[in-house]
Amino acid sequence: MKRVITISRQFGSAGRTIAKAVAEKLGYAYYDKELIKKVEEKTGFSPEYIEEHGEYAPSKSFFALASSYIGAPRVMGGMSAYDYLWVVQRNAILEIVEKEPCVIVGRCADFILKDRKDALHVFIHAPMEARAKRIVRLYGESEKKPEDRLKDKDSKRAINYKHFTGGTWGDSNNYDLCLNSETIGIDKCVELITELAKLD
Amino acid sequence: MKRVITISRQFGSAGRTIAKAVAEKLGYAYYDKELIKKVEEKTGFSPEYIEEHGEYAPSKSFFALASSYIGAPRVMGGMSAYDYLWVVQRNAILEIVEKEPCVIVGRCADFILKDRKDALHVFIHAPMEARAKRIVRLYGESEKKPEDRLKDKDSKRAINYKHFTGGTWGDSNNYDLCLNSETIGIDKCVELITELAKLD
Repeated sequence: MKRVITISRQFGSAGRTIAKAVAEKLGYAYYDKELIKKVEEKTGFSPEYIEEHGEYAPSKSFFALASSYIGAPRVMGGMSAYDYLWVVQRNAILEIVEKEPCVIVGRCADFILKDRKDALHVFIHAPMEARAKRIVRLYGESEKKPEDRLKDKDSKRAINYKHFTGGTWGDSNNYDLCLNSETIGIDKCVELITELAKLD
Repeated sequence: MKRVITISRQFGSAGRTIAKAVAEKLGYAYYDKELIKKVEEKTGFSPEYIEEHGEYAPSKSFFALASSYIGAPRVMGGMSAYDYLWVVQRNAILEIVEKEPCVIVGRCADFILKDRKDALHVFIHAPMEARAKRIVRLYGESEKKPEDRLKDKDSKRAINYKHFTGGTWGDSNNYDLCLNSETIGIDKCVELITELAKLD
């Protein structure tokens, strides 16, 4: 039985929906927004700030700018708020998994927990077209085209992942199981993950 | 029911073993070496040449060299033998899938058949350490360290994939299902693929 399931996901791939259903089926604690609350308590950062920067690079040019721009906002003796958030978030994840069996969504948890034998690491993805339809249905239209919103989110998550883990976000090597939720279907994804979670 | 299963795999990940077992379970034709024979008939290239160049870039510096070196061996009016092999191999794959339900190992078949609704695309991977143990057990020791043999093969397959598909080999986006055969186990991989193959 796996004690910890990490579910990384592309925006709009139904990864969160799948993660929630897996947690329910297994009777595990579910950490997504709950993780934000934990980090908020420890940092005093606003939930919006944590949500925005806990998984996304501030901007594509952030790292280039941050290293050259002397006035960049920094806390904790030279550590950027962005890096500090990582440390707190990482510690929160390490605490949580000691406390109870759980499903954790995103936040590089696959990397943070990669050496645990009792963890199952999952990545959920879907083709651009299916994701675009889904986010318009769930979150409505916006000024930006849905494809551009997705590309922007993908790119910021990938930069965030590369910055903290050195690896490539969505590279199958990082995970035990990667699923295309569009071709396999949400229910079947939940079923497969639950099935694998029950293995030793 | 999926009519075609493509199984891409890292060297030493047991992908071929898994593919063979899936074909047997489903009663599908199995194409791996069989594909080499088909290409041999059409090209007259030796099986060794086809096996070596049908999935692997000739060398890391081949593309840089080929474009600058006037004496590079070329056939078919300016087309390199390497590119020509791709064309014949691609056509062989397109013919095969029309003929019978099948499992095809490697050879960018996921990309070649990416628009077929009746195909399931799978990628099998495993951690370096597990693969190193496996290739030493199956193929014996060689002068080169097993990790170096694996890195060399991985890199040549990735360059080959990039050259012909423009994509990233092993990127989960290319496949419906990616499995770590070491943590999930060979038998369970076979079971999951067979299960998904039976879906519409």
